[in-house]
Amino acid sequence: MKTVGYAAHSADSELVPYHFERRDLRANDVAIEITYCGVCHSDLHTVNGDWGPQPYPLIPGHEIVGVVTAIGSDVKHYKVGENVAVGCMVDSCQECDQCHNHEEQYCRNGMTPTYGSPDRINGIITQGGYSKHIVVREEFVLRIPQGMDMSRAAPILCAGITTFSPLRTWNVQKGSRVGVIGLGGLGHMAVKLAVAMGAEVTAISRSNKKEEEAKALGAKSLLASSNADAMAEAANSFDLIIDTVPTKHDLNLYTPLLDIDGSLVMVGQIGPLEELMSIPLVMGRRRVAGSLIGGIKETQEVLDFCAEHDVYPECEMIKMEEINDAFARLAQGDLAHRFVIDMSSLSE
Amino acid sequence: MKTVGYAAHSADSELVPYHFERRDLRANDVAIEITYCGVCHSDLHTVNGDWGPQPYPLIPGHEIVGVVTAIGSDVKHYKVGENVAVGCMVDSCQECDQCHNHEEQYCRNGMTPTYGSPDRINGIITQGGYSKHIVVREEFVLRIPQGMDMSRAAPILCAGITTFSPLRTWNVQKGSRVGVIGLGGLGHMAVKLAVAMGAEVTAISRSNKKEEEAKALGAKSLLASSNADAMAEAANSFDLIIDTVPTKHDLNLYTPLLDIDGSLVMVGQIGPLEELMSIPLVMGRRRVAGSLIGGIKETQEVLDFCAEHDVYPECEMIKMEEINDAFARLAQGDLAHRFVIDMSSLSE
Repeated sequence: MKTVGYAAHSADSELVPYHFERRDLRANDVAIEITYCGVCHSDLHTVNGDWGPQPYPLIPGHEIVGVVTAIGSDVKHYKVGENVAVGCMVDSCQECDQCHNHEEQYCRNGMTPTYGSPDRINGIITQGGYSKHIVVREEFVLRIPQGMDMSRAAPILCAGITTFSPLRTWNVQKGSRVGVIGLGGLGHMAVKLAVAMGAEVTAISRSNKKEEEAKALGAKSLLASSNADAMAEAANSFDLIIDTVPTKHDLNLYTPLLDIDGSLVMVGQIGPLEELMSIPLVMGRRRVAGSLIGGIKETQEVLDFCAEHDVYPECEMIKMEEINDAFARLAQGDLAHRFVIDMSSLSE
Repeated sequence: MKTVGYAAHSADSELVPYHFERRDLRANDVAIEITYCGVCHSDLHTVNGDWGPQPYPLIPGHEIVGVVTAIGSDVKHYKVGENVAVGCMVDSCQECDQCHNHEEQYCRNGMTPTYGSPDRINGIITQGGYSKHIVVREEFVLRIPQGMDMSRAAPILCAGITTFSPLRTWNVQKGSRVGVIGLGGLGHMAVKLAVAMGAEVTAISRSNKKEEEAKALGAKSLLASSNADAMAEAANSFDLIIDTVPTKHDLNLYTPLLDIDGSLVMVGQIGPLEELMSIPLVMGRRRVAGSLIGGIKETQEVLDFCAEHDVYPECEMIKMEEINDAFARLAQGDLAHRFVIDMSSLSE
């Protein structure tokens, strides 16, 4: 199928329209017309080559919602016309313990990211959701629950699942004391999801600037990490901290905020951190961990959870042609919401 | 009661005989004649002032076994003549959630260490087990199980519980894949205890030098951290790593050895670590944690476990007057056993 997207042609070029082919449907493939695609900070990192060299031309985008336009002969669970979604992965080995355990993100043989990675069968580089169409094997297609607002659902596919998964893994429930460091795309979803699970949520931010925003998201309060007195007073007060900071930072500021047996889980930074002090860990059996997106089963769960609890990302709708401006604003950081591309703005 | 011990009088002095008073028995106190006391690396650190200024004269020692010589009027569980033990703590508030939950080591109001800390009632500095006698409130006295070899039991009170507690907290059982970094006092006990729990244990050491020693302790094999090929081959192969290294070190060498959802638990270093890389954590939901000794209930459990499974520390018996030489050897490191002081060598 011929289609069009917005691709980067090098690490320092802007995204521009790019005509390319989506593969012909395999027996287990679903063809999707993309209606909306979220703009994740990792899209920017990847096309800029921040995480290593990339196979250009490259179309980013892994927060995808759309409508089924065709199905392969063996597809069992989807029909033409249904609302569906695709997240950060489009394939995995399906044979290892992790895949069998619904943790395809940790596939022993490496999952296939939605863009920038060779397809497992034909070796052609996968291309993401900043495009009109995508073709994905059935096992990696999600169902959009009945009644869900398609225009605001896309960021659930990355920002949503990336924060939902650790909240579930670390058993957040009614009364859990949850801190969320950073109030960007991931952080604002972490606050909303934890609140919907019944947790007492505190947003942790450099200053008090986002206090109103945090409270509007459902946080009980905002803790300013630059306020030493407030930080000292908040010692031992969290069961779980979701750390969405996407740059090198100092965990020692935050580990004393954990209660005994508490965990700080990083979902933002993929790289080095400052020197870690063992004292808060040893003296309170505290833990520092990381977490990567979530499996397909759990991604369906977060979609269902959001539909049931009326949890939606804060979205700022943009046209496809506005993507380079959106990237520039994203690079400056400090947005407590997600850009979402209205794909109807892209003509074929 | 008048008694004698070996005390440091300053950070740079050797231990010398020191006559002092143990308090008169309170209603809930147990008086113990000490028969053996283990020599923990932390004794050396403390008297040397490595962990901050100390209240000299100071008698170290928190791996204590002995015989009850007198009991207070309210003591219910111990009788004169019974074999008992005392570990790293001699008191705590007994009122907070941690104390109620048998985790006195994490007492909200601060537990009272066996030496170097003010007694909660009279404020007199506690003095440790390098002495003939000690007086301890009943709740912090442990029972030596019937038939246990007193001369080899002492190091269970610190090296034993410090490694037993995380092995239990992280659910080590038959078939668990456990790595133990460092083969000193703590490390050699971690190997023995994990083996007795049915785990497959790998000793992790800088070189292959201690391979025979590790296997004699029950380890399946020794992994040399200086062998890059062996380390790469061992990636993703441990459910739990007990890290006993007592100095600043680089966790990034070890976190990739953890399987998905695996944990590395530090029990040795109380201070800074090298820069931590988040990648192995995020890419496999791996965890880094710390753990501090164990509660009184769990300390009784490790004593009972060791008696039942015939697990004993490797002990090198010394006379009290040999303590300064033993400290010198300990400072050089590299001992896969514990010094134990035969307290009958100290005359009053």
